[in-house]
Amino acid sequence: MRLNDTIVALATPSGAGAIAVIRVSGPEAIKIVAPLFKAKSNKNIQDQPSHTLHLGNLVDGARLLDEVLISIFHGPKSYTGEHTIEISCHGSSYIQQEIILLLIKKGCRAAEAGEFTLRAFLNGKMDLSQAEAVADLISSENQASHQLAMQQMRGGFSNEIQKLRQELLDFASLIELELDFAEEDVEFANRDEFMRLVSEIQNVLKKLIDSFAVGNVIKNGIPVAIVGEPNVGKSTLLNALLNEERAIVSEIAGTTRDSIEDEISIGGVGFRFIDTAGIRETQDVIEGLGIKRTFEKIAQAQVVMYLVDSSQLVSKSEVGRPKTEIGNGENNSLEQVKFEIEKIKTQFPQKPLIVIANKTDKLSDAEISDLTVSLSAVEGSNLISISAQENIGVEELKAKLLEFVNLGELRNNNTIVTNSRHYNSLLKALEEINHVQEGLNNNLSGDLLAIDIRQALYHFGEITGEVTNDELLGNIFANFCIGK
Amino acid sequence: MRLNDTIVALATPSGAGAIAVIRVSGPEAIKIVAPLFKAKSNKNIQDQPSHTLHLGNLVDGARLLDEVLISIFHGPKSYTGEHTIEISCHGSSYIQQEIILLLIKKGCRAAEAGEFTLRAFLNGKMDLSQAEAVADLISSENQASHQLAMQQMRGGFSNEIQKLRQELLDFASLIELELDFAEEDVEFANRDEFMRLVSEIQNVLKKLIDSFAVGNVIKNGIPVAIVGEPNVGKSTLLNALLNEERAIVSEIAGTTRDSIEDEISIGGVGFRFIDTAGIRETQDVIEGLGIKRTFEKIAQAQVVMYLVDSSQLVSKSEVGRPKTEIGNGENNSLEQVKFEIEKIKTQFPQKPLIVIANKTDKLSDAEISDLTVSLSAVEGSNLISISAQENIGVEELKAKLLEFVNLGELRNNNTIVTNSRHYNSLLKALEEINHVQEGLNNNLSGDLLAIDIRQALYHFGEITGEVTNDELLGNIFANFCIGK
Repeated sequence: MRLNDTIVALATPSGAGAIAVIRVSGPEAIKIVAPLFKAKSNKNIQDQPSHTLHLGNLVDGARLLDEVLISIFHGPKSYTGEHTIEISCHGSSYIQQEIILLLIKKGCRAAEAGEFTLRAFLNGKMDLSQAEAVADLISSENQASHQLAMQQMRGGFSNEIQKLRQELLDFASLIELELDFAEEDVEFANRDEFMRLVSEIQNVLKKLIDSFAVGNVIKNGIPVAIVGEPNVGKSTLLNALLNEERAIVSEIAGTTRDSIEDEISIGGVGFRFIDTAGIRETQDVIEGLGIKRTFEKIAQAQVVMYLVDSSQLVSKSEVGRPKTEIGNGENNSLEQVKFEIEKIKTQFPQKPLIVIANKTDKLSDAEISDLTVSLSAVEGSNLISISAQENIGVEELKAKLLEFVNLGELRNNNTIVTNSRHYNSLLKALEEINHVQEGLNNNLSGDLLAIDIRQALYHFGEITGEVTNDELLGNIFANFCIGK
Repeated sequence: MRLNDTIVALATPSGAGAIAVIRVSGPEAIKIVAPLFKAKSNKNIQDQPSHTLHLGNLVDGARLLDEVLISIFHGPKSYTGEHTIEISCHGSSYIQQEIILLLIKKGCRAAEAGEFTLRAFLNGKMDLSQAEAVADLISSENQASHQLAMQQMRGGFSNEIQKLRQELLDFASLIELELDFAEEDVEFANRDEFMRLVSEIQNVLKKLIDSFAVGNVIKNGIPVAIVGEPNVGKSTLLNALLNEERAIVSEIAGTTRDSIEDEISIGGVGFRFIDTAGIRETQDVIEGLGIKRTFEKIAQAQVVMYLVDSSQLVSKSEVGRPKTEIGNGENNSLEQVKFEIEKIKTQFPQKPLIVIANKTDKLSDAEISDLTVSLSAVEGSNLISISAQENIGVEELKAKLLEFVNLGELRNNNTIVTNSRHYNSLLKALEEINHVQEGLNNNLSGDLLAIDIRQALYHFGEITGEVTNDELLGNIFANFCIGK
């Protein structure tokens, strides 16, 4: 870790825009920029107070690079804790590049991914879990993941861990003190109180560990498998789900989405839709493989949406085809659909399933009613009639999806673990705490108890970064973007 | 033009990055942001001086949106001349969107394209040609276009126009004063001096009008047609030309380029390479159309590069094929190549042509020497042997390209017109000045002279924006990005 040099990077997204911000941080930040900047006011920025803004020209000798706005931050009152200059320049890619090249020529080093935040961590501006939350915050795409990242960045999770760690540390100190007076056989640490603390810590750890199931899917998007034959309206349905939020996003940020297997934000939560090939029964080997894959995708999903084209269903259901014909290439017959729904329910009895009768705009009310009765026989409570095309029933489907995902902990503002590194450390800490409890129950001697307690403390320290090493830090910050 | 409302827009490129900047400008900018911002220092930003930075939380009631850095600018000391707040937030698309939506909810209006710069113009912070240069600056992709835009933005061009306009205006006033004293037959405006001024203005206008030929290609990239059969190494050559600068760009900004017909910066100047299908003589109607198109592309280009695979040329040249065979599907024979070069030279005698013998790495020195002698017979001075693959001779080719483009005016730091709107106004102004000169030569009366002078002044005013209307402004600023 080289902390004694001054780093530079583009902090805004790459590409052309109205303005771009270039960040310079390190002991020489102000000294390097000062001779390159001619303030309109003729003031030297080396003499200017922290948290002030200055308009002027950025020059390389006689060459004028740009008219820029300079922000001055004196360490430790900056993001990194070091002296920092932010240069707000015109957003041309050429200018961004020239300014960065000039600063490198004048003694800066191009920052590595996440190096500004790494320095903030190393300078004690935030702990490791807070630093990790910065990256989560930047990649958050909906309200839920934003809320979790923000909570973690503001230290909600760290505080909880720190509190447990401090209480455990206090007991560890007392027990280690006993060891110094081993011959006198004293007990500084009240074993009953310690037992209560251990059990309290166990509860908190279990709660945090359990929260990862929710936290992980919120961070990565809740996986929803869409099962249905081609042409039952999968893309139309996804577009209908996407519609509203997309309109807002593309208007403001100029973004567009094309892929079907993309994340869609519903009620502030990200859903990741997984397209499947359907599950029609077959003797054909290749098709059989397709079905196997569909079942694998269902297994990975948290919710299954089974989509049928109700207009096809109604036109074919009158034929009264015997059950033996099922699987002979006839799609979307009512019998076939019932058979497939049963199959999913048998295979995944615990998995939330929504049966969606699409294209109801093509049916009469009587037909919809008949169809609903037929399908209710196999799936009653979670049957929804929609027309994705006409945007009928889409809101109901959204509500159903949200209902199926347990977001209670999110709504209650509880601490939720979203990071698999934290999850693993929590699991290990719990294991050690269980050892401590076992030891207490078996009246284990203080020196042996102390070892297990130290191990638990170690795993707490991994989360907040009291315990760390270069390799771990390298792995964590490599996933950041450059400029953060 | 609504100037009494407060506008908001994302000022940095869209997409996720370390940070994003949201700009708020208008009479209520500080008032609208103040209640949404809880400073770490507990200070109210409404009481804070201009050009200061403040760290804190951006909130919507109880909901925390982000930890942000706020820049305060009190009008008229701001880009727009109005009160302005810049919010530097975490660069997630979700956060950008939420903050903009919140500000709109609290009374801001989403800014239209270029509206911040439009306000700067309307508030007298810059004239119209300077405002136009801001957009050029942002889209500048190389040193030359950057230099021109910067010069224009800093008022270089405006000053030249203003000076002419003022001198002309002084004379116009004197002549109009004469009209008030018409019965006394006085001449306040010295006709000889005026004649000198008119001729000086003509010279300056002609120089500026002529500069547009250079300015236009610098702004849009110098068009270079590459003529050559498939597989002679066109893409490899373009990659070799692109190579160095590309490495720097992609390292810093993470950009990549794929298209062959892209702009490449050579020696700080943008070159736009135009791929052609070659010009082999043929009886085939469809191929004939292809050749017609090649000639059309050559006509549009400023320089022509004729590229041959020298290894094929050498292996075939020994056959000593008679000239009658030319055009019968045999590519890259020496005779064919000579024929094609002659054809280009006949068709475009004024157009700079570079003959490039590529793939020389596959030849012996003796073969290269033989080939050079052969080709020199048809094109001597501008023949270059290269190996694009091995990066041999590429620097020589770059130097040749720059030599062929007349950049004298750029190098001499002269004012260069790059904007076709300015060009058109200059043409019209010159036409009116010519009328004035004619009038002076014919001893036209003052009232008639005054009309032509006013017309010339009108066209000067169009450039700097003294004369303008909503439609013109709408057209100009619609081409800006939102947030500028």
